[in-house]
Amino acid sequence: MAQKNKKNKGLDNPLQPIISHAKEYGFIFPSSEIYGGLQAVYDYGSNGAELKKNLKEVWWKAMTQFNQNVVGIDAAIFMHPTTWKASGHVDSFSDPMVDNKDSNKRYRVDVLLEDKANEYRKAGDTAKAGALEQELGRLMDVEDMDGLRELLISEGIKCAISGTDNWTEVRQFNLMFSTEIGSVADESNKIYLRPETAQGIFVNFMNVQKTSRQQIPFGIAQIGKAFRNEIVARQFVFRMREFEQMEMQYFVRPGEEMQWYDHWKETRMKFLQAIGLPAEKLRYHDHIKLAHYANAAADIEFEFPIGFKELEGIHSRTDFDLSKHAEFSKTKIQYVDDTIEDKDKRKYIPYVVETSIGLDRLFLAVLSNSLTTAEGIDAKGNAKTRTFLKIHPALAPNKVAVFPLLRKDGLPEIAKGIFNDLRHDFKTIYEERGAIGKLYTRQDMIGTPFCITVDHQTKEDNTVTVRERDTTEQKRVKIEDLHAMINKEVSLRNIFDKLI
Amino acid sequence: MAQKNKKNKGLDNPLQPIISHAKEYGFIFPSSEIYGGLQAVYDYGSNGAELKKNLKEVWWKAMTQFNQNVVGIDAAIFMHPTTWKASGHVDSFSDPMVDNKDSNKRYRVDVLLEDKANEYRKAGDTAKAGALEQELGRLMDVEDMDGLRELLISEGIKCAISGTDNWTEVRQFNLMFSTEIGSVADESNKIYLRPETAQGIFVNFMNVQKTSRQQIPFGIAQIGKAFRNEIVARQFVFRMREFEQMEMQYFVRPGEEMQWYDHWKETRMKFLQAIGLPAEKLRYHDHIKLAHYANAAADIEFEFPIGFKELEGIHSRTDFDLSKHAEFSKTKIQYVDDTIEDKDKRKYIPYVVETSIGLDRLFLAVLSNSLTTAEGIDAKGNAKTRTFLKIHPALAPNKVAVFPLLRKDGLPEIAKGIFNDLRHDFKTIYEERGAIGKLYTRQDMIGTPFCITVDHQTKEDNTVTVRERDTTEQKRVKIEDLHAMINKEVSLRNIFDKLI
Repeated sequence: MAQKNKKNKGLDNPLQPIISHAKEYGFIFPSSEIYGGLQAVYDYGSNGAELKKNLKEVWWKAMTQFNQNVVGIDAAIFMHPTTWKASGHVDSFSDPMVDNKDSNKRYRVDVLLEDKANEYRKAGDTAKAGALEQELGRLMDVEDMDGLRELLISEGIKCAISGTDNWTEVRQFNLMFSTEIGSVADESNKIYLRPETAQGIFVNFMNVQKTSRQQIPFGIAQIGKAFRNEIVARQFVFRMREFEQMEMQYFVRPGEEMQWYDHWKETRMKFLQAIGLPAEKLRYHDHIKLAHYANAAADIEFEFPIGFKELEGIHSRTDFDLSKHAEFSKTKIQYVDDTIEDKDKRKYIPYVVETSIGLDRLFLAVLSNSLTTAEGIDAKGNAKTRTFLKIHPALAPNKVAVFPLLRKDGLPEIAKGIFNDLRHDFKTIYEERGAIGKLYTRQDMIGTPFCITVDHQTKEDNTVTVRERDTTEQKRVKIEDLHAMINKEVSLRNIFDKLI
Repeated sequence: MAQKNKKNKGLDNPLQPIISHAKEYGFIFPSSEIYGGLQAVYDYGSNGAELKKNLKEVWWKAMTQFNQNVVGIDAAIFMHPTTWKASGHVDSFSDPMVDNKDSNKRYRVDVLLEDKANEYRKAGDTAKAGALEQELGRLMDVEDMDGLRELLISEGIKCAISGTDNWTEVRQFNLMFSTEIGSVADESNKIYLRPETAQGIFVNFMNVQKTSRQQIPFGIAQIGKAFRNEIVARQFVFRMREFEQMEMQYFVRPGEEMQWYDHWKETRMKFLQAIGLPAEKLRYHDHIKLAHYANAAADIEFEFPIGFKELEGIHSRTDFDLSKHAEFSKTKIQYVDDTIEDKDKRKYIPYVVETSIGLDRLFLAVLSNSLTTAEGIDAKGNAKTRTFLKIHPALAPNKVAVFPLLRKDGLPEIAKGIFNDLRHDFKTIYEERGAIGKLYTRQDMIGTPFCITVDHQTKEDNTVTVRERDTTEQKRVKIEDLHAMINKEVSLRNIFDKLI
C-alpha cells in the first residue's frame, strides 16, 4: 500500500481516477511538468484555480463575514526567525531520517517501520504488527535515535535500491525550508518559509485586537501558503511540500476554552456538510495523546479514496503560543477584559481554540466526492454511463455555459448577448464549436451546473433551453428569468443558511 | 530625498500619513512587529486583508470572468530550477553590489550613484547630474563592474556609516531567494522562490491551452506571491521582498502582437480608472530602451505621494519565453492554428503580450488616493475637518455597518436582526458600544460606504437611518429595501460596466 502510493501512479492507486480527471480537465497538473515535474508540488489549472478560489471564498466569508466577531488577516510568508524559536519549530519540527550508505538514498525511519508493521498485518500477523507499532511509538516519544536504528536493523529492513542495511546514524531532520535574506555583507540572515500560518496570527494578536476593536471571545482567520520539506511526500495533493492552509484562531477567556472547542468542532462539521460533503463520509477522531501545547484536540476525518484521513483539526491550544511570544519578544501580550467586575482579574493572556484545514485537502475531498458515474440514456435511447462532477453549484468553477445550437441564423449573436449579460455576475462559458451533446458532456466533466442553448425557438419567444447537470433535465426558460434562476442556485446564501 | 525614503519614516516622508493610517486602522502592519519587524515585509490587518482580497477579486473577475477568452491558473511558488535557467533569471537577474570594508555594510552601486546625481540636481547642477546618470547607464548596460567601482571613487562617494571609501570589488548579486528541497542525501537540490509569476504561466501553456480548449488569441491570468531579495527596499509596500503579482499573458498570432499590445494598454488604463483611480493621476510611460525579450513595453504610472511611479507594465514579449522553455525542456511548445488556410503555416509559437501589476502597489495607490480630508460640520454646527477613505464601494473592506442608537428599548435586537440578514451577502459590521458620531467617524476611517442606525422610529415604521460616507447625508430607508440599495452600490457590475 505505502509503496504503491509512494509512486502516486499505477492502476491500483485508488486516487488514480481523480489524478487523471484532474489533469485531463484542467484542475491540477504536476508542477513544472515540461521539466519533469517537482515532487509533491502541483499547479492548479483553469478549472482548478476557480474551484480553489471558490473554496477560499466560502471559507473566508463563512468565517469573517458570517461571524460578526471573526476578522481576517493576511500575514507574510516571511516572518522574523525568532518566531520559530518561540513556537518550538526550530528545535522540534523534525522527522527521524536515515541514509543508506550504499545507495545514498534517504528515508524517514518511522515510515520504514510503519510500512514493516503493515506488512505483518497484511500477512495476518496482527500481534507482531501491534508490537512493532508500540515500540516505534515509544522510541519516537523519547526521541531515542539509536533505539530507532537498532529496531531498523533488528527488523531486517533494507534499502529498496541497494538492498543493504548499511544505514547511517538516525538524525532529526527539520522540515522547515530556510533561505537567506538581507543586505549585511558579513553575516547571513537565515529565515524560514513558514511551516504553518497560525504564528502569523499570534504575533499580530495585539495589533489586530486593538485595530479591529474586537472583544473576547473573537477570532482571527487567515488563508495562506505554508511549506514543509516532507521527505516522504505522496498521495497527490493530500501531502505537499507547498500547500495552503485556512486557519482560524479563536481567543477566549481561560477556563471557557472547552465550550468553544465543542462549539467549533460542531460548527466546522456543519460547514463541511453545508458545502456538500456527505455526513457519512465525515467523522470525528479525538486525540488521546496531545501535543505539548494542547489540552484537547480532534480531527475531522473525511473518507478519501485512500480511506478516512485527517481533513481538518480543531485544537484547544491554551495560552501556549501567546505566552511563548510574550516571553521571546519581551513584549506584553495580554487582553484587558472590562466585563470582569474584579479589576485585579481583568488582565489575562487569552486561551486559543484553533480550526485548521488544508485547502488542497479540502479541494481533493470535494473533487473526489463529486466525481460521479450514473446510468443514463444516450440520444438514441440506449443505456449508457454518464460521468459528471456533482459539485455544489456555489463552488462550481463555472456557473453556466451558453451555446448556440447552430453557428448561423443569428443564433450565435443571441447567445453572445446572453453571455455578455451573465458575465457581469457569473463565471460563464461561451462556446459555439461542437455538437450540443458533446458540449454538455464537457460541462458535466468540469461540473458546470447549467447549460443554456439558444435555438430557433429563441427567436420566436425569447426562451432558451436550460439543461441541468445532475438530472440532465431540460426546461425552457425566458431569457429575462435566467439571471434570477442561476443566482438562486449558485448563491453562497445556500451554504450560509445551513450554518445557523 | 532618497535618504529620507530609505528610512521609511520621519515627518518629511510623503508616505507617512498613509503608513500611520494603515497601521492605526488595521490595514498594514510591519511584519513580525513584536520581534522588531522584518525589513521590506509587511502583514495586512483585518481591513487590509479585505481590501486586498477585493482588489484580487475585481482583477481576477475582470480578467477571467469578463473575458470569455481569458482563463486563470494558480501555479506553485516552487518551480523546477531549470525554469529560471531558461528564463534568464539565474544568469542575469542581479544588481551590482559593493561592500564597505570598514563598516561591512552592503550597498547597491547604482543606487549610490543615482543618489549622488540627485544631490547635484538639488544643488542646481543639472548638467553634472545628467552626465553622471548617462555614464551610470552606459556602465550598467555593458555590465562594467570595474568601471562602476572607479566611478564610485571618482565621485567621492563614502559609506554613510564608516565615512570611508574603502570599497570591495563590485559584484553582481542575484535577487532570487534560494532554498534546498528534497530527499536525496548526497546532493542538495537548490530551488528558487519565484521572482515573478509569469513563468508559471509559460511552463503550463500547453496543458492550459489543451484543457481549456481556448484558441488564439487567448490569455492566462494568475495572482500569486513572488520574492526578490531587494537590497535597497524602501518606500513602504511599494517595493517589498515578498510581494504579490497579478499577471496576464495573452497569446497571439505572430505579427498581430502590436494590435493586442495597444488593446491591453487601453484596457488596463480603463480598468484602473473604473476602480476609482482618477485619470489625472494616471499616465503612460513608453519604454525607449527595451528588455532583451520585448519588442514594445510601457508602464502605466500612478501619482503616488512620492510622485509618478510604475504601477503596471504592459509588455510585448515576443516568443522569447515559450521558445526558451521549448529549448531548455526539449518539449514541443507550439500552437496549431486551424483558422489559417495554408496548412504549412498553421503551427507556430505564439507571441505574448503581458499585463503585470503589483497587487501591493495597487493597494497603496487605492489607499493613498482614498484618504480624503474635507471640511465638514460637527453636531453643534461648527466647522470641522473630516477625514474619510473615499474608496470605491465595491472595494471597501466593509460594505455596511449597523448600529442601534441606544443599547435598550429593543433596538439592539432589531439591529442584530438586520445584521443577521445582511451578512449573508455583504461584509457587515455590527457595533453597539459608543456614541453614533464616533461610530460614524470610525467607519469613515476604514471606508465603509453605508452606516445604518436603528432608532425608536424604526419600531414604528420599519425604517432606519442610512448615512452615506462621502456626503454624510442621511436618509430614512425601509428595512426591506436595504438589501437592494446596498447591492446596487457595491456590485462589481458598476466596475465591469465601465470596461466595455
